[in-house]
Amino acid sequence: LVKIAVDAMGGDYAPLAVIQGVNLALSEYDLQVSLVGRKAEIQAAIDATPNFDTSKVDIVDATDVVEMNDSPFESFKKKKNSSIKVGLDLVKQGAAQGFISAGNTGAMMFASTLILGKLPNIDRPAIMTMLPTNTKPVMLLDVGACVDCKPHFLLQFAEMANIYAKEVQHNPNPRIGLLNIGEESSKGNELSQKAFQLLSKSNLNFVGNVEGKDFFSNKADIVVCDGFVGNNMLKFGEGVVGLVTDFLKSEGKSSFLSALGLLLLQHTLKRFRKKFDYSEYGGAPLLGLNGVSIVAHGSSNRVAIKSAINNCLQTIQSNMVEKISQSIK
Amino acid sequence: LVKIAVDAMGGDYAPLAVIQGVNLALSEYDLQVSLVGRKAEIQAAIDATPNFDTSKVDIVDATDVVEMNDSPFESFKKKKNSSIKVGLDLVKQGAAQGFISAGNTGAMMFASTLILGKLPNIDRPAIMTMLPTNTKPVMLLDVGACVDCKPHFLLQFAEMANIYAKEVQHNPNPRIGLLNIGEESSKGNELSQKAFQLLSKSNLNFVGNVEGKDFFSNKADIVVCDGFVGNNMLKFGEGVVGLVTDFLKSEGKSSFLSALGLLLLQHTLKRFRKKFDYSEYGGAPLLGLNGVSIVAHGSSNRVAIKSAINNCLQTIQSNMVEKISQSIK
Repeated sequence: LVKIAVDAMGGDYAPLAVIQGVNLALSEYDLQVSLVGRKAEIQAAIDATPNFDTSKVDIVDATDVVEMNDSPFESFKKKKNSSIKVGLDLVKQGAAQGFISAGNTGAMMFASTLILGKLPNIDRPAIMTMLPTNTKPVMLLDVGACVDCKPHFLLQFAEMANIYAKEVQHNPNPRIGLLNIGEESSKGNELSQKAFQLLSKSNLNFVGNVEGKDFFSNKADIVVCDGFVGNNMLKFGEGVVGLVTDFLKSEGKSSFLSALGLLLLQHTLKRFRKKFDYSEYGGAPLLGLNGVSIVAHGSSNRVAIKSAINNCLQTIQSNMVEKISQSIK
Repeated sequence: LVKIAVDAMGGDYAPLAVIQGVNLALSEYDLQVSLVGRKAEIQAAIDATPNFDTSKVDIVDATDVVEMNDSPFESFKKKKNSSIKVGLDLVKQGAAQGFISAGNTGAMMFASTLILGKLPNIDRPAIMTMLPTNTKPVMLLDVGACVDCKPHFLLQFAEMANIYAKEVQHNPNPRIGLLNIGEESSKGNELSQKAFQLLSKSNLNFVGNVEGKDFFSNKADIVVCDGFVGNNMLKFGEGVVGLVTDFLKSEGKSSFLSALGLLLLQHTLKRFRKKFDYSEYGGAPLLGLNGVSIVAHGSSNRVAIKSAINNCLQTIQSNMVEKISQSIK
């Protein structure tokens, strides 16, 4: 039976959304969960959750909480008994087979790398995320773990994501693209030109350069890039979506016809939100570590937590860490 | 009287949209225009434009046309009589005071740099663009001219944009931000950390790091970044907008209520398009060159061409090139 440690204190709606998400997962999947965090707060959240199945759950007390804006380094040094550290220690000691947190991504990355360690042949771990599109989601990495990449880091990101797509997403032949500012191999900066050469010579199913606007046109299943570029791009995309939403909201208040139009479109907008909802896609695994550590979105609701648990379960059951370790040499 | 050279062959709707845009500009502004391109095609477009004022216009024949997907280097070498080269030569020779093209941006950048030359103290020219927001537009640069920036290039971008904002946009004290993945000065890659130090020590009104999602929250008037990051981010933003639009379109066909909702919202959507319409913001000047060269959007309609001409006029009349040259030493 798989046992997963879950950070009960991580995320905007913790601990309640986490406890409810665990409860959903327990009703669907066969697993055991260690809830890590402040015991009294976890117990209160359990008491507030109807039909919570306590038989498959234990609480591991952790008195410190890493806040969303804590520095990864400082929080690691000073909050020695944080739910992130205690949870990762459980994985390190073999008391759990994977850890999930919807808390501070930087702190998760930092602590995961120090506690679990990198796999022997990996230079830099990467944070991967799934971007929803009109067809199927696209995997983008790195989105913030490594902000000064060398060309062979990008090759390793592609190799790791390739295994993840095959093993966890059951895609037999994932198409891999390189983020670039044009389609031709000669385009881009020094990093992308050299990475293009490495990817071309690899055994991967490399489909060439992918431009930002082509993310959503089903050209590749996986897109690799430097973490500085990936993180900025992702946040800019969030900004654009927010801009559209704010505009529609303010328009809805401006006239009766607009308000009525929005009302008639509410099912459409609901479908839109559902389609582009991060919570359907679960958490982002930190790839390249010697253990399973998954970052869920900061504003995870219970469905997002459940998806992240499912993701964690599949990552464990497919032996992904071992497969990455074996294939990258 | 100011004389501007306009590439009649550049852009998706050339030559007709260009000729119509010139006609609009001639009715509003006091200027003379040299239309550069294939004489017969230009004449046909003029004949198709009602009330075209030929007294303020001359045609300069250029037999070659640079296509949108031509390589900047190859097109410069092989298309010796292209409208882009001929138009820039007019500026170089003093026969025109500025040049506008809605054609191939890379080819414009390459030819402008070679023909007009860089200003003495500028390391790299930059392409600037205006991003619409819910409040006032934000200036972003570089968006593709320099894809491997050094820290002091970003400082120069900020200095050039600062002068442009003051002189052309009449903003007395532009707030300057640095694109980064977090707010703290310690965040980011090597480039952004070093650029942060340079910007902090400068005389500019530096407001610190700006994240991609903060573009639209009125934190800065100008945001500087490496051209590789800026270009990818911009194209990703276009992709996100396209995703939303495609979704709404397909939903409009799926049910009567959705179609009716969209119909009621059509004025809202029209206002949205107008607000976020590039054509209202004119062209993007290539900053750092020894002459005025302006890139208009590839899908420019006549209003966009008129805005770019207005932009060109203001750039010339404010002596921007000279002011940049004097202030950056």
